[in-house]
Amino acid sequence: VTKKGATKTARGPTKGSETRQLVVALALQIAAREGLSALSIGRLAKELRMSKSGLFLHFGSKEKLESAVLELARLQLFSHILKPIEAAGLQGIERVWALCDFWMDFSEHGPLRGGYFFTGAFFRSAKINGPIPRQIRRVVRDWMDLLVEALKQARRSDEIRPSVDTEEAAFDLNSILIGAQWALLMTGRDYTKARSAILSHLRSLATDEIPDRAFESVKTWKAYLKNRRVPADR
Amino acid sequence: VTKKGATKTARGPTKGSETRQLVVALALQIAAREGLSALSIGRLAKELRMSKSGLFLHFGSKEKLESAVLELARLQLFSHILKPIEAAGLQGIERVWALCDFWMDFSEHGPLRGGYFFTGAFFRSAKINGPIPRQIRRVVRDWMDLLVEALKQARRSDEIRPSVDTEEAAFDLNSILIGAQWALLMTGRDYTKARSAILSHLRSLATDEIPDRAFESVKTWKAYLKNRRVPADR
Repeated sequence: VTKKGATKTARGPTKGSETRQLVVALALQIAAREGLSALSIGRLAKELRMSKSGLFLHFGSKEKLESAVLELARLQLFSHILKPIEAAGLQGIERVWALCDFWMDFSEHGPLRGGYFFTGAFFRSAKINGPIPRQIRRVVRDWMDLLVEALKQARRSDEIRPSVDTEEAAFDLNSILIGAQWALLMTGRDYTKARSAILSHLRSLATDEIPDRAFESVKTWKAYLKNRRVPADR
Repeated sequence: VTKKGATKTARGPTKGSETRQLVVALALQIAAREGLSALSIGRLAKELRMSKSGLFLHFGSKEKLESAVLELARLQLFSHILKPIEAAGLQGIERVWALCDFWMDFSEHGPLRGGYFFTGAFFRSAKINGPIPRQIRRVVRDWMDLLVEALKQARRSDEIRPSVDTEEAAFDLNSILIGAQWALLMTGRDYTKARSAILSHLRSLATDEIPDRAFESVKTWKAYLKNRRVPADR
Protein backbone atom coordinates (compact mmCIF):
# COMPACT_ATOMS: atom_id res chain seq x y z
CA VAL A 1 0.00 0.00 0.00
CA THR A 2 2.84 2.38 0.92
CA LYS A 3 4.56 1.73 -2.42
CA LYS A 4 1.38 2.28 -4.35
CA GLY A 5 0.77 5.42 -2.35
CA ALA A 6 4.25 6.64 -3.24
CA THR A 7 3.71 5.94 -6.90
CA LYS A 8 0.45 7.79 -6.76
CA THR A 9 2.14 10.85 -5.28
CA ALA A 10 4.84 10.72 -7.97
CA ARG A 11 2.75 10.30 -11.11
CA GLY A 12 -0.66 9.25 -9.88
CA PRO A 13 -2.45 12.58 -10.02
CA THR A 14 -1.60 13.11 -13.69
CA LYS A 15 -2.49 9.60 -14.71
CA GLY A 16 -5.59 9.67 -12.55
CA SER A 17 -6.68 12.96 -13.99
CA GLU A 18 -6.07 11.67 -17.53
CA THR A 19 -8.20 8.61 -16.84
CA ARG A 20 -10.86 10.79 -15.34
CA GLN A 21 -10.95 13.00 -18.43
CA LEU A 22 -11.15 9.96 -20.67
CA VAL A 23 -14.05 8.53 -18.70
CA VAL A 24 -15.92 11.84 -18.73
CA ALA A 25 -15.37 12.29 -22.47
CA LEU A 26 -16.66 8.81 -23.24
CA ALA A 27 -19.58 9.26 -20.86
CA LEU A 28 -20.49 12.49 -22.64
CA GLN A 29 -20.51 10.71 -26.01
CA ILE A 30 -23.00 8.23 -24.59
CA ALA A 31 -25.08 10.87 -22.80
CA ALA A 32 -25.28 13.05 -25.92
CA ARG A 33 -26.76 10.12 -27.82
CA GLU A 34 -28.89 8.47 -25.17
CA GLY A 35 -29.29 10.92 -22.28
CA LEU A 36 -27.70 11.11 -18.87
CA SER A 37 -29.78 8.24 -17.57
CA ALA A 38 -27.95 5.88 -19.91
CA LEU A 39 -24.75 6.44 -17.90
CA SER A 40 -24.31 3.52 -15.58
CA ILE A 41 -20.98 2.82 -13.94
CA GLY A 42 -21.37 -0.76 -15.15
CA ARG A 43 -21.70 0.23 -18.78
CA LEU A 44 -18.79 2.65 -18.64
CA ALA A 45 -16.61 0.06 -16.93
CA LYS A 46 -17.39 -2.38 -19.71
CA GLU A 47 -16.74 0.09 -22.55
CA LEU A 48 -13.49 1.27 -20.96
CA ARG A 49 -12.46 -2.22 -19.81
CA MET A 50 -11.97 -0.93 -16.30
CA SER A 51 -13.24 -2.36 -13.05
CA LYS A 52 -16.38 -0.86 -11.54
CA SER A 53 -14.50 -0.23 -8.31
CA GLY A 54 -11.76 1.59 -10.25
CA LEU A 55 -14.39 3.86 -11.79
CA PHE A 56 -15.99 4.49 -8.42
CA LEU A 57 -12.55 5.53 -7.16
CA HIS A 58 -12.48 8.29 -9.78
CA PHE A 59 -15.97 9.65 -9.22
CA GLY A 60 -17.36 8.41 -5.94
CA SER A 61 -20.92 8.37 -7.23
CA LYS A 62 -23.01 8.32 -10.41
CA GLU A 63 -24.13 11.84 -9.56
CA LYS A 64 -20.57 13.16 -9.50
CA LEU A 65 -19.92 11.51 -12.83
CA GLU A 66 -23.06 13.07 -14.29
CA SER A 67 -22.04 16.44 -12.93
CA ALA A 68 -18.59 16.16 -14.54
CA VAL A 69 -20.21 15.16 -17.84
CA LEU A 70 -22.51 18.19 -17.72
CA GLU A 71 -19.60 20.47 -16.97
CA LEU A 72 -17.66 19.13 -19.96
CA ALA A 73 -20.73 19.54 -22.21
CA ARG A 74 -21.16 23.10 -20.97
CA LEU A 75 -17.50 23.93 -21.61
CA GLN A 76 -17.63 22.46 -25.11
CA LEU A 77 -20.81 24.36 -25.96
CA PHE A 78 -19.71 27.75 -24.64
CA SER A 79 -16.13 27.56 -25.91
CA HIS A 80 -17.34 26.56 -29.38
CA ILE A 81 -19.69 29.54 -29.44
CA LEU A 82 -17.75 32.17 -27.53
CA LYS A 83 -14.13 31.62 -28.58
CA PRO A 84 -14.54 32.88 -32.16
CA ILE A 85 -16.86 35.66 -31.01
CA GLU A 86 -14.44 36.94 -28.37
CA ALA A 87 -11.43 36.48 -30.68
CA ALA A 88 -13.04 38.69 -33.32
CA GLY A 89 -14.47 41.05 -30.68
CA LEU A 90 -17.93 40.83 -32.21
CA GLN A 91 -20.42 43.34 -30.87
CA GLY A 92 -23.88 44.70 -31.63
CA ILE A 93 -26.29 42.88 -33.88
CA GLU A 94 -23.38 40.90 -35.30
CA ARG A 95 -22.78 39.33 -31.90
CA VAL A 96 -26.44 38.29 -31.68
CA TRP A 97 -26.20 36.73 -35.13
CA ALA A 98 -22.92 35.00 -34.28
CA LEU A 99 -24.32 33.48 -31.08
CA CYS A 100 -27.13 31.85 -33.07
CA ASP A 101 -24.86 30.97 -35.98
CA PHE A 102 -22.28 29.21 -33.79
CA TRP A 103 -25.01 27.50 -31.75
CA MET A 104 -26.17 25.88 -34.99
CA ASP A 105 -22.61 25.17 -36.01
CA PHE A 106 -22.01 23.43 -32.68
CA SER A 107 -25.16 21.37 -33.12
CA GLU A 108 -24.17 20.33 -36.65
CA HIS A 109 -20.39 20.03 -36.49
CA GLY A 110 -19.43 20.22 -32.83
CA PRO A 111 -17.97 17.33 -30.84
CA LEU A 112 -21.49 16.12 -29.99
CA ARG A 113 -22.99 15.63 -33.45
CA GLY A 114 -26.72 16.14 -33.30
CA GLY A 115 -25.84 18.47 -30.44
CA TYR A 116 -29.25 18.24 -28.88
CA PHE A 117 -27.88 17.38 -25.49
CA PHE A 118 -29.04 20.39 -23.48
CA THR A 119 -32.35 20.77 -25.32
CA GLY A 120 -33.44 17.26 -24.44
CA ALA A 121 -31.89 17.48 -20.99
CA PHE A 122 -33.69 20.74 -20.25
CA PHE A 123 -37.12 19.57 -21.40
CA ARG A 124 -36.69 16.44 -19.33
CA SER A 125 -35.35 18.01 -16.15
CA ALA A 126 -37.22 21.31 -16.04
CA LYS A 127 -39.59 20.12 -13.32
CA ILE A 128 -37.29 17.84 -11.33
CA ASN A 129 -35.55 18.79 -8.10
CA GLY A 130 -31.94 17.97 -7.33
CA PRO A 131 -28.42 19.11 -8.16
CA ILE A 132 -28.20 17.60 -11.66
CA PRO A 133 -31.45 19.14 -13.00
CA ARG A 134 -30.37 22.42 -11.37
CA GLN A 135 -27.03 22.23 -13.15
CA ILE A 136 -28.83 21.65 -16.47
CA ARG A 137 -31.16 24.60 -15.87
CA ARG A 138 -28.17 26.80 -15.03
CA VAL A 139 -26.51 26.05 -18.39
CA VAL A 140 -29.75 26.83 -20.22
CA ARG A 141 -30.18 30.04 -18.20
CA ASP A 142 -26.57 31.03 -19.00
CA TRP A 143 -27.26 30.50 -22.68
CA MET A 144 -30.40 32.67 -22.56
CA ASP A 145 -28.47 35.33 -20.61
CA LEU A 146 -25.80 35.43 -23.30
CA LEU A 147 -28.47 36.13 -25.89
CA VAL A 148 -30.21 38.75 -23.73
CA GLU A 149 -26.93 40.54 -22.95
CA ALA A 150 -25.93 40.64 -26.61
CA LEU A 151 -29.38 41.99 -27.53
CA LYS A 152 -29.16 44.67 -24.84
CA GLN A 153 -25.73 45.73 -26.01
CA ALA A 154 -26.98 45.89 -29.61
CA ARG A 155 -29.90 48.01 -28.41
CA ARG A 156 -27.53 50.36 -26.57
CA SER A 157 -25.43 50.76 -29.69
CA ASP A 158 -28.57 51.64 -31.64
CA GLU A 159 -28.56 48.62 -33.93
CA ILE A 160 -31.68 47.18 -32.35
CA ARG A 161 -34.80 49.27 -31.77
CA PRO A 162 -35.26 50.76 -28.28
CA SER A 163 -38.76 49.24 -28.03
CA VAL A 164 -37.44 45.66 -28.33
CA ASP A 165 -38.04 43.49 -25.26
CA THR A 166 -34.69 41.69 -25.15
CA GLU A 167 -35.94 38.77 -23.05
CA GLU A 168 -38.77 38.21 -25.55
CA ALA A 169 -36.40 38.49 -28.48
CA ALA A 170 -34.06 35.93 -26.88
CA PHE A 171 -36.94 33.48 -26.45
CA ASP A 172 -37.99 34.04 -30.07
CA LEU A 173 -34.47 33.36 -31.37
CA ASN A 174 -34.25 30.32 -29.12
CA SER A 175 -37.55 29.03 -30.55
CA ILE A 176 -36.12 29.17 -34.05
CA LEU A 177 -33.01 27.30 -32.90
CA ILE A 178 -34.69 24.46 -31.05
CA GLY A 179 -37.40 24.21 -33.72
CA ALA A 180 -34.65 23.82 -36.31
CA GLN A 181 -32.97 21.18 -34.16
CA TRP A 182 -36.30 19.33 -34.04
CA ALA A 183 -36.52 19.49 -37.85
CA LEU A 184 -32.91 18.33 -38.18
CA LEU A 185 -33.55 15.38 -35.88
CA MET A 186 -36.76 14.52 -37.71
CA THR A 187 -35.68 14.94 -41.31
CA GLY A 188 -31.90 15.11 -41.25
CA ARG A 189 -31.89 18.46 -43.01
CA ASP A 190 -29.35 21.16 -42.17
CA TYR A 191 -29.80 24.66 -40.73
CA THR A 192 -29.96 26.60 -44.01
CA LYS A 193 -33.59 27.57 -43.50
CA ALA A 194 -33.05 28.26 -39.81
CA ARG A 195 -30.27 30.74 -40.65
CA SER A 196 -32.65 32.60 -42.96
CA ALA A 197 -35.30 32.57 -40.23
CA ILE A 198 -32.84 34.00 -37.69
CA LEU A 199 -31.90 36.71 -40.18
CA SER A 200 -35.56 37.61 -40.84
CA HIS A 201 -36.08 37.89 -37.14
CA LEU A 202 -33.06 40.17 -36.73
CA ARG A 203 -34.45 42.34 -39.53
CA SER A 204 -37.64 42.78 -37.53
CA LEU A 205 -35.58 43.96 -34.54
CA ALA A 206 -33.06 46.18 -36.33
CA THR A 207 -32.94 49.98 -36.57
CA ASP A 208 -32.26 51.97 -39.73
CA GLU A 209 -28.58 51.89 -38.78
CA ILE A 210 -28.48 48.55 -40.59
CA PRO A 211 -29.23 48.94 -44.32
CA ASP A 212 -32.29 46.90 -45.28
CA ARG A 213 -30.57 45.28 -48.26
CA ALA A 214 -28.15 43.60 -45.84
CA PHE A 215 -31.03 41.37 -44.72
CA GLU A 216 -31.91 40.12 -48.20
CA SER A 217 -30.17 36.77 -47.74
CA VAL A 218 -27.60 35.10 -45.53
CA LYS A 219 -25.13 35.80 -48.34
CA THR A 220 -25.81 39.55 -48.46
CA TRP A 221 -25.76 39.59 -44.66
CA LYS A 222 -22.32 38.00 -44.48
CA ALA A 223 -21.03 40.36 -47.15
CA TYR A 224 -22.38 43.31 -45.19
CA LEU A 225 -20.76 42.10 -41.95
CA LYS A 226 -17.43 41.49 -43.68
CA ASN A 227 -17.54 44.90 -45.24
CA ARG A 228 -18.31 46.81 -42.07
CA ARG A 229 -15.43 45.15 -40.25
CA VAL A 230 -12.97 46.98 -42.54
CA PRO A 231 -11.78 49.95 -40.43
CA ALA A 232 -13.34 53.19 -41.64
CA ASP A 233 -10.14 55.24 -41.22
CA ARG A 234 -8.03 53.28 -43.70
CA VAL B 1 -54.21 -21.94 -6.09
CA THR B 2 -57.32 -23.47 -7.65
CA LYS B 3 -59.56 -21.18 -5.67
CA LYS B 4 -57.58 -18.11 -6.64
CA GLY B 5 -57.60 -19.32 -10.23
CA ALA B 6 -61.39 -19.66 -10.13
CA THR B 7 -61.80 -16.19 -8.70
CA LYS B 8 -59.55 -14.88 -11.43
CA THR B 9 -61.66 -16.46 -14.14
CA ALA B 10 -64.83 -15.04 -12.64
CA ARG B 11 -63.85 -11.40 -12.17
CA GLY B 12 -60.11 -11.43 -12.74
CA PRO B 13 -59.96 -10.05 -16.28
CA THR B 14 -61.87 -6.89 -15.35
CA LYS B 15 -60.01 -6.41 -12.13
CA GLY B 16 -56.73 -7.16 -13.89
CA SER B 17 -57.47 -4.65 -16.61
CA GLU B 18 -58.45 -2.04 -14.02
CA THR B 19 -55.23 -2.58 -12.13
CA ARG B 20 -53.32 -2.37 -15.37
CA GLN B 21 -54.96 0.95 -16.24
CA LEU B 22 -54.21 2.27 -12.78
CA VAL B 23 -50.56 1.30 -13.03
CA VAL B 24 -50.22 2.85 -16.49
CA ALA B 25 -51.91 6.08 -15.37
CA LEU B 26 -49.63 6.40 -12.35
CA ALA B 27 -46.59 5.52 -14.43
CA LEU B 28 -47.53 8.26 -16.90
CA GLN B 29 -47.74 10.82 -14.09
CA ILE B 30 -44.18 9.90 -13.09
CA ALA B 31 -42.91 9.76 -16.67
CA ALA B 32 -44.43 13.15 -17.50
CA ARG B 33 -42.51 14.69 -14.62
CA GLU B 34 -39.28 12.73 -14.71
CA GLY B 35 -39.09 10.94 -18.05
CA LEU B 36 -39.62 7.33 -19.04
CA SER B 37 -36.33 6.25 -17.54
CA ALA B 38 -37.68 7.05 -14.06
CA LEU B 39 -40.14 4.17 -14.42
CA SER B 40 -38.77 1.21 -12.55
CA ILE B 41 -40.96 -1.72 -11.61
CA GLY B 42 -39.58 -1.37 -8.08
CA ARG B 43 -40.67 2.23 -7.73
CA LEU B 44 -44.14 1.59 -9.12
CA ALA B 45 -44.59 -1.42 -6.84
CA LYS B 46 -43.70 0.76 -3.88
CA GLU B 47 -46.00 3.64 -4.85
CA LEU B 48 -48.90 1.27 -5.58
CA ARG B 49 -48.15 -1.00 -2.61
CA MET B 50 -48.10 -3.97 -4.92
CA SER B 51 -45.55 -6.75 -5.19
CA LYS B 52 -42.95 -6.51 -7.94
CA SER B 53 -43.97 -9.94 -9.16
CA GLY B 54 -47.61 -8.79 -9.30
CA LEU B 55 -46.59 -5.88 -11.48
CA PHE B 56 -44.50 -8.11 -13.70
CA LEU B 57 -47.57 -10.29 -14.16
CA HIS B 58 -49.42 -7.31 -15.63
CA PHE B 59 -46.74 -6.13 -18.01
CA GLY B 60 -44.16 -8.83 -18.51
CA SER B 61 -41.35 -6.30 -19.00
CA LYS B 62 -40.37 -2.69 -18.37
CA GLU B 63 -40.49 -2.14 -22.12
CA LYS B 64 -44.12 -3.25 -22.31
CA LEU B 65 -44.99 -0.92 -19.44
CA GLU B 66 -43.21 1.98 -21.18
CA SER B 67 -45.05 1.19 -24.39
CA ALA B 68 -48.42 1.22 -22.58
CA VAL B 69 -47.51 4.55 -20.95
CA LEU B 70 -46.61 6.07 -24.31
CA GLU B 71 -49.86 4.83 -25.81
CA LEU B 72 -51.86 6.42 -23.00
CA ALA B 73 -49.95 9.72 -23.38
CA ARG B 74 -50.60 9.65 -27.13
CA LEU B 75 -54.31 9.02 -26.63
CA GLN B 76 -54.59 11.82 -24.08
CA LEU B 77 -52.76 14.28 -26.34
CA PHE B 78 -54.67 13.52 -29.52
CA SER B 79 -58.09 13.22 -27.91
CA HIS B 80 -57.60 16.53 -26.09
CA ILE B 81 -56.68 18.22 -29.36
CA LEU B 82 -58.88 16.43 -31.88
CA LYS B 83 -62.16 15.85 -30.01
CA PRO B 84 -63.26 19.51 -29.92
CA ILE B 85 -61.94 20.07 -33.46
CA GLU B 86 -63.87 17.12 -34.89
CA ALA B 87 -66.97 17.91 -32.82
CA ALA B 88 -67.12 21.42 -34.26
CA GLY B 89 -66.07 20.21 -37.71
CA LEU B 90 -63.34 22.84 -37.91
CA GLN B 91 -61.72 23.22 -41.31
CA GLY B 92 -59.42 25.57 -43.20
CA ILE B 93 -57.18 28.04 -41.40
CA GLU B 94 -59.40 27.70 -38.31
CA ARG B 95 -58.40 24.05 -38.02
CA VAL B 96 -54.70 24.98 -38.17
CA TRP B 97 -55.25 27.58 -35.47
CA ALA B 98 -57.25 25.14 -33.33
CA LEU B 99 -54.56 22.44 -33.54
CA CYS B 100 -51.99 24.89 -32.13
CA ASP B 101 -54.45 26.39 -29.66
CA PHE B 102 -55.45 23.01 -28.19
CA TRP B 103 -51.83 21.82 -28.17
CA MET B 104 -51.06 24.74 -25.85
CA ASP B 105 -54.21 24.11 -23.87
CA PHE B 106 -53.18 20.48 -23.39
CA SER B 107 -49.74 21.57 -22.26
CA GLU B 108 -51.18 24.07 -19.76
CA HIS B 109 -54.36 22.41 -18.54
CA GLY B 110 -54.27 18.80 -19.78
CA PRO B 111 -53.89 15.78 -17.53
CA LEU B 112 -50.09 16.07 -17.72
CA ARG B 113 -49.53 19.58 -16.41
CA GLY B 114 -46.41 21.03 -17.95
CA GLY B 115 -47.29 18.67 -20.79
CA TYR B 116 -43.77 18.57 -22.11
CA PHE B 117 -43.71 14.83 -22.25
CA PHE B 118 -43.29 14.23 -25.98
CA THR B 119 -41.02 17.22 -26.57
CA GLY B 120 -38.47 15.99 -24.04
CA ALA B 121 -38.97 12.39 -25.08
CA PHE B 122 -38.44 13.23 -28.75
CA PHE B 123 -35.28 15.27 -28.22
CA ARG B 124 -33.89 12.49 -26.09
CA SER B 125 -34.78 9.55 -28.26
CA ALA B 126 -34.40 10.97 -31.75
CA LYS B 127 -31.12 9.16 -32.34
CA ILE B 128 -31.72 5.96 -30.42
CA ASN B 129 -32.73 2.64 -31.96
CA GLY B 130 -35.38 0.38 -30.52
CA PRO B 131 -39.14 0.03 -30.27
CA ILE B 132 -39.72 2.70 -27.58
CA PRO B 133 -37.83 5.52 -29.37
CA ARG B 134 -39.59 4.45 -32.59
CA GLN B 135 -42.95 4.71 -30.83
CA ILE B 136 -42.04 8.23 -29.60
CA ARG B 137 -40.96 9.32 -33.08
CA ARG B 138 -44.21 7.97 -34.51
CA VAL B 139 -46.31 10.14 -32.16
CA VAL B 140 -44.26 13.20 -33.10
CA ARG B 141 -44.55 12.36 -36.80
CA ASP B 142 -48.34 11.93 -36.39
CA TRP B 143 -48.53 15.36 -34.77
CA MET B 144 -46.58 17.00 -37.60
CA ASP B 145 -48.76 15.17 -40.16
CA LEU B 146 -51.89 16.57 -38.52
CA LEU B 147 -50.50 20.09 -38.94
CA VAL B 148 -49.38 19.46 -42.52
CA GLU B 149 -52.75 17.97 -43.52
CA ALA B 150 -54.67 20.88 -41.98
CA LEU B 151 -52.40 23.35 -43.79
CA LYS B 152 -52.89 21.54 -47.10
CA GLN B 153 -56.65 21.53 -46.66
CA ALA B 154 -56.58 25.26 -45.83
CA ARG B 155 -54.51 25.82 -48.97
CA ARG B 156 -57.00 23.86 -51.08
CA SER B 157 -59.86 25.94 -49.68
CA ASP B 158 -57.96 29.10 -50.64
CA GLU B 159 -57.42 30.39 -47.09
CA ILE B 160 -53.66 29.82 -47.25
CA ARG B 161 -51.58 31.01 -50.18
CA PRO B 162 -50.80 28.46 -52.93
CA SER B 163 -47.07 29.20 -52.61
CA VAL B 164 -46.92 28.07 -48.97
CA ASP B 165 -44.73 25.02 -48.33
CA THR B 166 -46.95 23.19 -45.85
CA GLU B 167 -44.16 21.05 -44.38
CA GLU B 168 -42.13 24.23 -43.73
CA ALA B 169 -45.12 26.01 -42.24
CA ALA B 170 -45.76 23.05 -39.94
CA PHE B 171 -42.16 23.15 -38.70
CA ASP B 172 -42.45 26.92 -38.15
CA LEU B 173 -45.63 26.57 -36.11
CA ASN B 174 -44.05 23.72 -34.16
CA SER B 175 -41.02 25.94 -33.40
CA ILE B 176 -43.30 28.54 -31.84
CA LEU B 177 -45.02 25.85 -29.76
CA ILE B 178 -41.93 24.14 -28.38
CA GLY B 179 -40.17 27.48 -27.91
CA ALA B 180 -43.16 28.64 -25.86
CA GLN B 181 -43.03 25.44 -23.86
CA TRP B 182 -39.35 26.15 -23.17
CA ALA B 183 -40.27 29.66 -21.97
CA LEU B 184 -43.10 28.27 -19.83
CA LEU B 185 -40.77 25.76 -18.22
CA MET B 186 -38.11 28.40 -17.67
CA THR B 187 -40.22 31.29 -16.44
CA GLY B 188 -43.62 29.79 -15.58
CA ARG B 189 -45.40 32.20 -17.90
CA ASP B 190 -48.44 31.15 -19.91
CA TYR B 191 -48.97 30.92 -23.66
CA THR B 192 -50.48 34.38 -24.21
CA LYS B 193 -47.51 35.56 -26.29
CA ALA B 194 -47.25 32.25 -28.09
CA ARG B 195 -50.87 32.54 -29.22
CA SER B 196 -50.11 35.98 -30.68
CA ALA B 197 -47.03 34.57 -32.38
CA ILE B 198 -49.05 31.71 -33.91
CA LEU B 199 -51.60 34.25 -35.14
CA SER B 200 -48.89 36.46 -36.70
CA HIS B 201 -47.52 33.45 -38.47
CA LEU B 202 -50.96 32.49 -39.81
CA ARG B 203 -51.34 36.05 -41.08
CA SER B 204 -48.14 35.62 -43.08
CA LEU B 205 -49.59 32.45 -44.68
CA ALA B 206 -53.16 33.64 -45.29
CA THR B 207 -54.79 34.74 -48.55
CA ASP B 208 -57.02 37.81 -48.97
CA GLU B 209 -59.98 35.52 -48.23
CA ILE B 210 -59.26 36.27 -44.59
CA PRO B 211 -59.76 39.97 -43.75
CA ASP B 212 -56.54 41.48 -42.44
CA ARG B 213 -58.26 43.09 -39.43
CA ALA B 214 -59.07 39.56 -38.16
CA PHE B 215 -55.38 39.13 -37.37
CA GLU B 216 -55.06 42.23 -35.22
CA SER B 217 -55.19 40.32 -31.94
CA VAL B 218 -56.22 36.95 -30.57
CA LYS B 219 -59.43 38.68 -29.48
CA THR B 220 -60.29 39.99 -32.95
CA TRP B 221 -59.33 36.60 -34.38
CA LYS B 222 -61.70 34.72 -32.09
CA ALA B 223 -64.48 37.21 -32.86
CA TYR B 224 -63.86 36.72 -36.57
CA LEU B 225 -63.98 32.92 -36.24
CA LYS B 226 -67.15 33.03 -34.17
CA ASN B 227 -68.78 35.34 -36.67
CA ARG B 228 -67.97 33.28 -39.73
CA ARG B 229 -69.44 30.19 -38.12
CA VAL B 230 -72.89 31.78 -38.23
CA PRO B 231 -74.55 30.25 -41.33
CA ALA B 232 -74.64 32.76 -44.16
CA ASP B 233 -78.16 31.76 -45.29
CA ARG B 234 -79.92 32.76 -42.09
